[in-house]
This record gives sequence, C-alpha cells and structure tokens, in this order.
Amino acid sequence: MSNSLGKMFTVTSFGESHGKCVGIVVDGCPAGLPISEKDIQTELDKRKPGKGVASTKRAEEDKADILSGIFKGHTTGAPICLLVWNNDIDSGAYEKTRALLRPGHADYTAFMKYGGFNDFRGGGRFSGRITSGFVMAGVIAQKLLNVIGVEIIAHTVEIGGIKARTKNPEEIRRAVEQNPLRCADPQATEKILKAIKEAGGEGDSLGGIIEGIALNAPIGLGEPVFDTLEGELAKALFAIPAVKGVEFGAGFAVAGKKGSENNDPFIIKRGRILTATNNAGGILGGISNGMPIVVRVAVKPTPSISQKQQSVNIDTMGNAEMKITGRHDVCIVPRAVPVVSAMMAITLCDHAIRARLIPEVIK
Amino acid sequence: MSNSLGKMFTVTSFGESHGKCVGIVVDGCPAGLPISEKDIQTELDKRKPGKGVASTKRAEEDKADILSGIFKGHTTGAPICLLVWNNDIDSGAYEKTRALLRPGHADYTAFMKYGGFNDFRGGGRFSGRITSGFVMAGVIAQKLLNVIGVEIIAHTVEIGGIKARTKNPEEIRRAVEQNPLRCADPQATEKILKAIKEAGGEGDSLGGIIEGIALNAPIGLGEPVFDTLEGELAKALFAIPAVKGVEFGAGFAVAGKKGSENNDPFIIKRGRILTATNNAGGILGGISNGMPIVVRVAVKPTPSISQKQQSVNIDTMGNAEMKITGRHDVCIVPRAVPVVSAMMAITLCDHAIRARLIPEVIK
Amino acid sequence: MSNSLGKMFTVTSFGESHGKCVGIVVDGCPAGLPISEKDIQTELDKRKPGKGVASTKRAEEDKADILSGIFKGHTTGAPICLLVWNNDIDSGAYEKTRALLRPGHADYTAFMKYGGFNDFRGGGRFSGRITSGFVMAGVIAQKLLNVIGVEIIAHTVEIGGIKARTKNPEEIRRAVEQNPLRCADPQATEKILKAIKEAGGEGDSLGGIIEGIALNAPIGLGEPVFDTLEGELAKALFAIPAVKGVEFGAGFAVAGKKGSENNDPFIIKRGRILTATNNAGGILGGISNGMPIVVRVAVKPTPSISQKQQSVNIDTMGNAEMKITGRHDVCIVPRAVPVVSAMMAITLCDHAIRARLIPEVIK
Amino acid sequence: MSNSLGKMFTVTSFGESHGKCVGIVVDGCPAGLPISEKDIQTELDKRKPGKGVASTKRAEEDKADILSGIFKGHTTGAPICLLVWNNDIDSGAYEKTRALLRPGHADYTAFMKYGGFNDFRGGGRFSGRITSGFVMAGVIAQKLLNVIGVEIIAHTVEIGGIKARTKNPEEIRRAVEQNPLRCADPQATEKILKAIKEAGGEGDSLGGIIEGIALNAPIGLGEPVFDTLEGELAKALFAIPAVKGVEFGAGFAVAGKKGSENNDPFIIKRGRILTATNNAGGILGGISNGMPIVVRVAVKPTPSISQKQQSVNIDTMGNAEMKITGRHDVCIVPRAVPVVSAMMAITLCDHAIRARLIPEVIK
Repeated sequence: MSNSLGKMFTVTSFGESHGKCVGIVVDGCPAGLPISEKDIQTELDKRKPGKGVASTKRAEEDKADILSGIFKGHTTGAPICLLVWNNDIDSGAYEKTRALLRPGHADYTAFMKYGGFNDFRGGGRFSGRITSGFVMAGVIAQKLLNVIGVEIIAHTVEIGGIKARTKNPEEIRRAVEQNPLRCADPQATEKILKAIKEAGGEGDSLGGIIEGIALNAPIGLGEPVFDTLEGELAKALFAIPAVKGVEFGAGFAVAGKKGSENNDPFIIKRGRILTATNNAGGILGGISNGMPIVVRVAVKPTPSISQKQQSVNIDTMGNAEMKITGRHDVCIVPRAVPVVSAMMAITLCDHAIRARLIPEVIK
Repeated sequence: MSNSLGKMFTVTSFGESHGKCVGIVVDGCPAGLPISEKDIQTELDKRKPGKGVASTKRAEEDKADILSGIFKGHTTGAPICLLVWNNDIDSGAYEKTRALLRPGHADYTAFMKYGGFNDFRGGGRFSGRITSGFVMAGVIAQKLLNVIGVEIIAHTVEIGGIKARTKNPEEIRRAVEQNPLRCADPQATEKILKAIKEAGGEGDSLGGIIEGIALNAPIGLGEPVFDTLEGELAKALFAIPAVKGVEFGAGFAVAGKKGSENNDPFIIKRGRILTATNNAGGILGGISNGMPIVVRVAVKPTPSISQKQQSVNIDTMGNAEMKITGRHDVCIVPRAVPVVSAMMAITLCDHAIRARLIPEVIK
Repeated sequence: MSNSLGKMFTVTSFGESHGKCVGIVVDGCPAGLPISEKDIQTELDKRKPGKGVASTKRAEEDKADILSGIFKGHTTGAPICLLVWNNDIDSGAYEKTRALLRPGHADYTAFMKYGGFNDFRGGGRFSGRITSGFVMAGVIAQKLLNVIGVEIIAHTVEIGGIKARTKNPEEIRRAVEQNPLRCADPQATEKILKAIKEAGGEGDSLGGIIEGIALNAPIGLGEPVFDTLEGELAKALFAIPAVKGVEFGAGFAVAGKKGSENNDPFIIKRGRILTATNNAGGILGGISNGMPIVVRVAVKPTPSISQKQQSVNIDTMGNAEMKITGRHDVCIVPRAVPVVSAMMAITLCDHAIRARLIPEVIK
Repeated sequence: MSNSLGKMFTVTSFGESHGKCVGIVVDGCPAGLPISEKDIQTELDKRKPGKGVASTKRAEEDKADILSGIFKGHTTGAPICLLVWNNDIDSGAYEKTRALLRPGHADYTAFMKYGGFNDFRGGGRFSGRITSGFVMAGVIAQKLLNVIGVEIIAHTVEIGGIKARTKNPEEIRRAVEQNPLRCADPQATEKILKAIKEAGGEGDSLGGIIEGIALNAPIGLGEPVFDTLEGELAKALFAIPAVKGVEFGAGFAVAGKKGSENNDPFIIKRGRILTATNNAGGILGGISNGMPIVVRVAVKPTPSISQKQQSVNIDTMGNAEMKITGRHDVCIVPRAVPVVSAMMAITLCDHAIRARLIPEVIK
C-alpha cells in the first residue's frame, strides 16, 4: 500500500471501515494557521449520510479528533494527526459472506494482493469511509488556500444519466449547502431524486458525475512534465473509491472538436490576460492559467446492490449467486462531492506551496 | 518543474524541442536485460512524422543514442541515459512571433511561471517532441514487462468525432504496425483520413481518443489508497501534451449506468477467477484484477492551426490577431499512440517492481 | 517539517512531548506478519526511563496502542498506526520559562522557523519522547527482518569519555537486556555509573557513543549512488535528537590509516566470500557485503543541565542567565540504544524490500 | 540503483567511468539564473587530477557540456543536463583482472547485486569520476545560494593522521585556490606532502578528513524529524565514494564532553542572537541556527594500492593474490574537497527552496 500523497503538503491516510478509527496525518502545513475541531467537524458533516433517499443509514457520529500539530488554536508546523473514531460497527454480515466476492468491489483484488490477511469488514481500507480522513485534511488545505484567495466548489452535474444544467458559482455554493444531492439545478434534482427512489426500489444503484471548480487560482500551479496540474489532480481524485474517469475543461468532448473551436482565444480584460472561453479547464501545458480550474469525475454506481448477483466463492472456487444485504447508498455521488473538493484542495495546496505562494508561517 | 516519474522504476526527462537534444534517464532498471539501440530505434520510429496527411513535415532523424547503463548488450543496473539529438531546427519563426501568445499552447503559462526565461522555440519543454524520451524509456519498460508476459497495445479509437468500431487484440496489433492512423477499423480510417484532409485544407486541426490495453497483466498491480493503478496511469498519461481526459473501462459512461449493469460478475474459467464483463477496465479498488487493463485518453485538437486567431501581445499587452505558420500536424492522435503505450509500460513496470514481480537481476 | 522516512517501508511520525500522544504510521508493511501490542510494548519498555541514575523520573506508562493495520493478530498490508498516549504531563515549568532559549536545545531554531507557533512544552516535536514512535515502528521492521534472518543489536560503547572494551555479539545481547547502561563491559559500566553520578551531582550531563550492529545481513542492501546504505542509515540515525556524528566500520580512524591497513582482504570460508577484517563496517560501494554492518553514533550530552547558563530572552532580546529545573536524564545514551536499533531496523527493512528480499505477503 | 537526490532541487546522476560520459540532470532549478559552461568548467577543473604527488595521471579534459535547460545564458526552469565526455579510456587492465575482487572496492558487492552485469571498467558507477556530475550540479546550487548570500568553503583538515591547525575562512578560501592539498595550514601541508610521497613510494595510500563550512546560512534550513539538516547533509556526503564518517560541530568529541562544555551559550551581538561557541556546528534540532554550518567527513585511503593483496577470484572461487596496476591517487582527499562543497551546496539549496527562501524566478 502507498498511503501518502503530496510533496510539500503531504497527507498520510490510515484506518479501516470497521477498525478503531479512520485517520490522516497532514505534514508540511505551515505554522500559524488558526484551526479548530469545529472547522473540521463542519466539513466532515457534509460527508455524513444524509436524510435523503440517496444515503445509507449507518448512524455514525464521525466526530473529528485532533491528536497533534495544533497548539493554542493554531497549526504549529508539526504533523497534524486527525481522526474519527468508529462507533457504530456491525461486522457480522461481512464475516458470514466473506468468501463471496462482491462484484464491483475490491474483495477479490485485496484478497489476492494481501494473501487474505486484509481486513475485509465493511470493505476495510477500500471503504468510502476512508475518505473522512481526506475531508479532514481538505479542511486544512482549503484554509491554507484561503490565504491566497483560492476557493474550491464542487457539485453534482449528473446522476443516472440525468444532467444538470450549467449554473454559476453562486448557485453552486448554495446548492452544496442546501440541495440534498449537492446539485445546483432544482429541476434535475427532482428528476434525479425520483430516479434514485426507483433504483433503490429495484435494489439497484446509480452513478454520476461531479464537477469541481477552483476559483481565483493563481497562474503557475503545476510542475510539468510529470507533475502537471491535470496529472496531480487526477491522481488525487482517483483515490476516491468508485471514480473511473477524470477530465478537464472540454474533456472527452475535445475528440469531436476542431482546433478552431477548442482553442481558447486570449483577451485582455481590466489589464489582465484571460481567455474568452475555458475549454482548457484553466490549465495549459499542465500549468494553471488563471481561469477557473474545472475538473469532472465519473463516479460509478455503488457496487453494493441488493439484487441477486453472479459471483464466485473463493473458498470453494465454485460459482455462486449472492445478495448483498445491509445498509448501502443507492447513489454515492452526493456524499462524494465534499471529497472531490477536499482532494482538489489538497493538491492545489501542495502546488501552491511548491510555487512558494504560501509561506512557512501564516501571520 | 518536476521531471521524474515512478518510485522504483524512475524516468527523468530533459531536453527541449529546439535545444541540443531530448533525453531521458531510466533509473531502477534491473540488470541483465538485453537491449540495443535498434530496439529503441524501432519504437521511436513509430512516433516519427509519417507520410500520411496527418503529420508535420519536420524531417527529423530521431536517432536513439544510449549514453550510459548498457554494457555488453545488457542493462547493468545503472541509470540508462537515452537521447535523440535535434538536427533539423528552424527557430526563426518562433523568435519573430514570441510575444504573441498562441491560443491552446503553454506560451502564456510558461512565460508567467518561468518569468519569460523559458526556451520558447518550438514550444521548448512543452513540445510533443519531449515524448521521444518517454517512448525510449517505454521500450525498456515494455521489455521488462515481457519478462512477466505483459503486453501493451494502443490504438486510435476516435478522431474528429468519428468512432472506430471495437476490434480484437490481433486486429489492433496489426493496425498499430500498418494503419496510417493506428486505427484498427478500416472504414473509420477512411472517413477519418478524409476528415483530416478537410480540416487541414481549412487550416484547422482535429482531436481524438486513444485506447491503451494491457494484456495478461498480473493481479495485484496498484498501491491504494493513493497510488491506485488508475491514479498512477492517469498521472503518467496526462504528461502527454494535449491529453485532457483519462477514463478506465466503462469510464464516463458509468454515469448513466445502474449498478446491476456496471458490476462485472465474477466467473470461473479454466480454474481461474475472471469477470464476465470488463466495465472495471481491469482495475478494482485501484488494483489490477487480471482482466485486460483498459484506459482511454482524450487528445485535444492540435492547437497550432493556420487560421487567424484572437490573441494577446504580451509585450504591448494589447489584443492582437495572429496566424501560426510552419509545419504542424493536423491531428496528433496517431503519433501519440506509441506514447500512450510507453506511459502505460512505464507505470505498469514501476508497479510490477513494487509488487516484487520483476527481480533485481534478469537471467 | 518532513516526517516521513523510507521509500517502500515508510514511517510517518506525529505527536508532541506534551500533546495528546506520540505516534507513527507504518506504511508498506507486508501482510501476514504476526504482531501484537505485547511485542511492541516489550521493546517500548526498553526506552522507558529506568531506575538507574542515568534517567529522568517522568513516570510515563508509554502503553502501546494499535489503531489500524492489524487484524486477527496479523498485519493486513494496510498502514499501521501505533501510538502511546501522554499521561503524566506537567507543562507549567515550560510556560514560565518559554522566552528563555535553552542552550543546546531547539528552542531558538523552532521559534524562528515556526514563527513562535511551535508547541514548546517539553520540547514539543524536538523531545526525545518522539522516538517512542520510532521504537514502535522498529519492532515491526525487526520482525520483518527476522523473516530473512537479520538481527540487530546495539549497545553503549562510550560515555563521558570512558570507553567499553570490545565484546562479542552474545555479550552485547545480554547487556542490552540486563546492563543498566546497555553496555557489555562490566568494568566500564562501573566507571561510567560513577561518572554519571558525579556529573548529576554537579548538575551536569554526559555524552557518549552507541554502536549498532546488523548480523547476518544479506549482500546487496543499499542503492548507490545516492541511497547508499551508509547515507540512508546516517539520515535515519540523525533523526534521533542529540546525534551529532555517524561513522561506519573504522569510521574517522580511516584518516590515520594506510590503504594496506584499511582494505579488508577477501577470503573464502566454508564456500562463502568474506573479508578477513571489517574496516568497511559491512558496506562497500554503499552496498552491504555480507559482513556485520557496524555503525557508531555520537550522542551529545543532554543539553538540559541544572547549572546556571548564559542565554537570551527572546521577548526582551536581552541577555539572561537561566537554570533549567525539572526532570532530566544526566545521560541519554542508554535510553537511545533501542532507538538506534529501531532506526537501523527501519532502514534495513526498507532496503530489504527494495531488493525484493521480503515478499508482499509473509506466509 | 537510486540516483536522484533532493526534493525540490533534485539531481539525477548517470554515466560510468569508462562509458561514453558522466552526467547529471538538475531539476527544480529556478529560472533566470545566469550560467555558462565556463562557470561549470572552472569548478570542474578543481576536481581534475592535479600536478601534485597526490594524483592520478589520467589525462582527462573533463570538458563540461550543457545539453539542456540553459537558454540565452540563463536557466529556464527546465531540467539542466550537464555532462563530461570520457575521452582517455584504457579499459584493458580491468578486463584482464575482472575476476579478482579488489579489496576495499565495490567489485564484490556490485557483482553480487547486479548479477555480474555491472560495467566493471574503472569501477563503473562506483568510480570517483561519477562525482564530476555532482560538482557540475554543485556549481548551479552554489550560484543559487549566492542569491541569498550563502557561501560554502571546504578544505583538507587531516591526511595520514597529520592534522592541520584551525584556520579562518579567508585562509581557507585562499587554500582552496592555491594549496595543492586544499589545506589551509602550510606546515601541515609540507608534512602531508612528504607522507604522501612516502606512501606512494611504498605502493600505499592515505586517508584523511575534509571539513565543509557554510557561511552566512539563514536560520531555518532543515526539516525535522526525518529531513534534519544533519541527516540530509550526511546522506548527500556519503554518496562520495570513500566517505565512512560524517560529523557536525564537535562531532564525536561530544562523547567526552559535559553538557556544560558542549552547550553553546546564546548571546546577543549587534541585535542578533548568536551562540558564543559553535559545538552544534550551526544546527540545533536539525535546523540551521544562523551560525556557520560545520561538517567533517572521513575519507578512507584509496583502496587501489599497488602492494600485493589477499583476494578472491570470483570465477574460480579460490583465494588469490593480486596487485593493482595502473594510475591511481595516493590520496583522494584533495580532489574530494570540491565534491564536499558541491554536496553541501546541493543539499542547502534544496532546503533553501523548501523554506521558500529562493523564488521560482531569479531576477
């Protein structure tokens, strides 16, 4: 396993879904940043199973605990260990069905790679719950980005094939706070909620697309040729379980575009160089160009469905049918929205430090 | 800049489009691997500007030169420095138009990040020519992968909105060798060639999609939670200039799928566990599952078009119209195909070593 | 701060002397290794303040707590978070004297680097207590090394200028368990104990030298030219507070030797190639040669002394005299012995994995 | 092999003693730094075999060649590839005696680690010649350090047991330029030259000690707990072949000192906080404290001696006597002095960038 991410702002993840806790160590955070458990809790709550139809019923508290690196309300420059303790754990179901490989899950690959020693309960290290740690680290990253005025917003733009119409940042900000799907388009929301209900009724699940946007990002983030901003963001985003695609700006649509359509013309506006369009998603040559950084991630439908599925029993090496019981989200997309924000914040923060834009001490 | 990639099998890129050379240092290559300049040349030639309509007319020889790390026809365990010398260089055009920011290029971001000191001639570090180094390193990686039986094939699956039909590995292998577009579908090839000719006639360019496939990949490659196989491949692939999206298996289509459709059922075939479908693209939980690893990358249309474009003169800070002259590919996609293979080989090789599947000495 | 060490076997340190806890995350540990809290506790107890004259009176329990990565008594391949909670904390003294820079301590450099935000209580991140985490990680590393038969022993070879006579491994093993100074020479022990008592009586402290030996190390550990075994061990050992020198084999004595004296002749013994002497300390060209790996580290006298000292008050920027009160070791050397073992184990383990000598799964 | 060093300022070494060339890629160098081949040549010449008695007669030109990263006389922000071509190569002797393991050399460990595939000619990767690359990278690092006023000087302080008396920086600077041994003490120089002549006459060799000093280093370099300035410098210095010990400030002498002697009292001088003595070698808690950074490295006597030596023939696995013929330095110490400077410059430069003290663009 390889559980550290970032060069100058480094996060190290640990913990399992049904172990004692899920945590993260944030290393390389400048000293002097004001931070409290409440700051972290507020963001963590966004990842919490909601009251909507889309979510699991696991009644976790997910209470943030700061173990190190904060002193008198400020970061100290030392590594910050953050964790949430696991309380509401029922592992019985997993023990019983452990030999049955759940389709779409990491059961099989984890079994093979770790020789059957992996903690399989609730998916262990492969559970979406691990992302609680990402979100906590993301709070610190976002606070550091605030110092240089960068804001990250993310929202649901598609679920179950139903697309949300394009919205402006203000509408998106509001959606993230209030809309049960973190979707800025009320009409799409209605249709999607219906689709989720339907899929849930059929014991099925839905995938979707999340868009993340970094506003007011400085020019110059990204370190080509290998640590391009696209590459680094993509790597961070693929750490979110269920993500199967990442695209920037026009993304895969570039395949059907001509250069004359896709090139963003440079213009001057109020003395600054901008581009008239943003097909580049704010990144040229792997480096941010001052326009909004726009990334979209494809989230596959939750593999845990209650329908009967074809599988294999790894103990008997025979074919087997299985039904997954227990609590599961019909659609993980809304809960993954704050995780997309967090991974963006972590990556941009690392690159802002690499570009010497955030000092060693925040004053 | 950050020009090293890989943890145990590490490549370090250097050189500029119009400097003395373009090169790569391959570190961490096991000793004892037979390798010759001819091996490298053969692959390098695939990246060479073709005779087809799609390609630039720069008459480079691109002759591979091995500077270190090979002794008596075998790798020694020492770092391997490979380079191609730049011969046919005409930088005059670039000097004249340097203040004009070419839309879709890295001119602006490079100027800002490197304070105007960057070598702008021919795009400098941002030129597609840099990928010659990637291809040379890819040859070594592919040879190492041969030791454990992994084969990587890549091919063009879409250009200018024209999609190729799905083909089997044998057809793809043949296409890569013979088809001018490295496209396995002859009918699509015909249509695309026509579209390229048309776009070229209009001074325009076309984007497309390349698919890379790793056959016979072992189970267990990938190191979650952060060094997932998807994340690592994506990071490597985004180092190819013009790539704006990366997806695995069903990719962005998962957004419109239900769990019951997207989950790949496990089955047993000749005593081995496989999946009946491969929506996962051979990766579950960030770890290879023994099925073909399937990735698709979106390549934007070449930003260098000869049509008039809206731009900015960075010296005068005034709006300006510009026309790019000189030699340019109408569609870079076919030439990028071997680069996609190379980046996949480099990444899989690194992970095969991390999983102890390739020994320190090849015998 | 940069709190991760190791490439394939990576430890990440966190926690402060007077914060909630001191911990470590061990990443890259193969799955299947049996491990219990008792294993860790046993080693941790060796670092505990002893009953001898040499030690502080802080009555910590230092109880090891495993937060993740162990399941059913075995490692899972997931990151292992280990910590000891801080219980017996009296920070009052530090608050009062905080503006007075203690000579020989990190007070000044930490204040300057972290803008005064660092947790200064008990030295914060710079306390020897941080090494509890190193020791816990070292237990896991040593257990992995057991798989390939490597044993690490360390012992005190000099304190206060009093040198211990050379002893054989068996005597050293015993000393580490029983001797209050972890010194294998009983006569030197007696003299040193007297010197410690004397120094303590004068409110002073003593430095010394620890020798670490890796027995039965395989040939081939170390990755020149930059990750030489000497360089990697040295880097790890300098993380122990108070270490100011590291030497291998004949060490600094090579300055007065001739090549004919210092070269270790190769000989054949029972079909294996050995060297007749071991001035190289088991390392040639940065790579282990199969002989015992021998390293010595110089440990400065504890900077906390109760004598009056010349200092500066950083608030008033005036000269000031100060006296350090509270609990402090007269000589830290004996307590640092298990830490030297731990750092050696961590480094050798990382390199054993890099050389593919330890598999991904222990069976 | 692992041939990259540094996090933000990264050097990657390649090349062999008797291959085509020896080179280095410098990555992470800010743009805008004026640099010429002459700058590099001047420093490189210092490492050249001298006219004195101490040196080999290999008549290399060691001409610096800049392959990339410099444009119009300035760094561009792109990786800088520097190399010296190998001209005067006579490998015959090595071919004949290849099976005989030279005592004190890496012949045996390299053979075992790389399965006999290593380039053994002239020591291959293990030759001191590799350090030409380090010296070239060091020039760039030193030029970057000039931007913040840091100066690095190194000098010979002991050879063959003969110690030089302490000298001030001005005397050391002069010595480095003029003294054949790069020793600032003329009387010691005389004695040492005699000792070298004697040892040479006996077909023997001598070791010694080099001291490196960084003047005017800023406070705050070093990233504890693992990237301490001591640990990072030590790792870099152990990459120099023949180095077997590294110590800072009082170094191993701390073992015989009391805390009251070893602690450096803080004082105020012209409004700045200094220490009255510098036993800490300018480093407290792994962080530079503003005093001169002082490091000493022990260099073993050249293992290549022309006396008869006991060895092993690895082909026959029998004992064998051997005599090394050919050109060899009686004492490598003077030639290693600029390499010590270079490794210090590289390490301090990396940490200055990490501390955001050197910007992305030099103006």
